[in-house]
Parts: sequence; C-alpha cells; structure tokens
Amino acid sequence: MKRPVNLGEALASFDAVYSPRIVARMNDYDVRVAHVKGEHVWHTHTDTDEFFLVLDGRFDIALRDADGTVTTVELHPGDTFVVPRGTEHKPSSPGGSILMFEPSGTSTTGDTHEGEIPDHVDSTTGHEL
Amino acid sequence: MKRPVNLGEALASFDAVYSPRIVARMNDYDVRVAHVKGEHVWHTHTDTDEFFLVLDGRFDIALRDADGTVTTVELHPGDTFVVPRGTEHKPSSPGGSILMFEPSGTSTTGDTHEGEIPDHVDSTTGHEL
Repeated sequence: MKRPVNLGEALASFDAVYSPRIVARMNDYDVRVAHVKGEHVWHTHTDTDEFFLVLDGRFDIALRDADGTVTTVELHPGDTFVVPRGTEHKPSSPGGSILMFEPSGTSTTGDTHEGEIPDHVDSTTGHEL
Repeated sequence: MKRPVNLGEALASFDAVYSPRIVARMNDYDVRVAHVKGEHVWHTHTDTDEFFLVLDGRFDIALRDADGTVTTVELHPGDTFVVPRGTEHKPSSPGGSILMFEPSGTSTTGDTHEGEIPDHVDSTTGHEL
C-alpha cells in the first residue's frame, strides 16, 4: 500500500526552485509541489488546464490574452487558481511554495514557450521525490 | 477570467460535514473541500483513484483489502494520500477539513457502499461554493 506523503516534508527534501517533485499520482494525473522564486517563462499548455494552490509565500501568474493584454493574478497562501488550457502565462514569485495538479507528462515550460528558458527554471515533467 | 478561490474562505462559508464544495474545476476533474467529523460509510469508487490532502485537524481512512483485512491510515495536516480505485474505504475524523481531487461526477459514497448512509454524510457529487 502507498504511504501518506507530507507536503512539508516533501518540500524540505529539496531546494531547487521551479523544479517540481511528484508527491502523488491519481489516475493519469500528478500532484506536484515546487519551491518558487524569480521569473518563470511565458508558456502555454495547449491541451490541459493547470491547477495551482499556494502553500507558502506568494505566487503571481501573469496571463496574456489573444490581443496581448496582460492580467496578473496575485496569489497568497491558501489561494487556488486554474490557468485554462491554451492560455499564455508566466509565473513569478518573491519566494514561496506551491502545489499543482496536472496530467502526468505535462512539461513545466508548456508545449510552447517564449524566448530562452532561464537557468533557474527546470524544463521537466516532474521529478520523483 | 476565473478568480482565485481561497480554501480558508471557502471552508468558512459553510458548516456541513461530509458535504464537499467544489472550489475549482480543471479539465474534467474537481477540486473539492469538505469539513469532516464522525464516521463516513464503507464505499468503493470502481473506476477512479481519489486524492486527499488534510488541511486541518485529523482524518483517518480505513482500507479493507480483498480478504477483509482492515488497515487504517492516520492523516494529519499537510498529509496526502491516494485511495486506489476499487479499494473499499471508510473515512473518519474527530474533526478537521480536507481537500480532494477527483473526476467531476464522483459520488461521495462511491459506486457501491455498505449499509445505510448516516444522516451526517451527504451523498453528492459536490456542491457549488
């Protein structure tokens, strides 16, 4: 039988930012946690929504609509937000941690992204704990 | 654009136990929160795993395997656990709150359940906030 995984202990087991760890799998979805700090990269998941829950600190998500207008959602601990599929978005944070639900295999940098991927952003489908 | 939903505010907006509210939808899945207290009912989700995150208090899940052996997983705040599809389980709690991730339309009392559903357990596919 699978054992419980504590989110705090999972987050304490690694330091890298924007490098999600998979804490649970259910059906064909992952539950991932990540430390966040700095600017992520503009990217789009063509075929899936993406769910975020802020665990600590602050986490902002800039969203860019089809005509180029950018709206930024500011998220604090306990806040949840869903980025709809096909929506360009760029996370950023002064520091914090998040939980995500998304289909297994979903890349942190989407199906498409804009410009270079910064060194502090891990382009990955999630790492084992 | 959808607005963020805060889990604490969502939980403060209702009192009923074992009566989940849907705080977010992503793809064909729900993110639900619930207050928990007392004994739930033995039930099984035939076709889906079920993800739990304990937000407050304590939440136990008894699991019964094919030969009738019961194992109880004790969960504390920050603990996550996945009940595999097809596994008989019965939650119980001295009081607390949880977050769940499961396919939209999943019933709180499963595809099959054992005995009467207690009055304090809401057999539902989740309510709007």
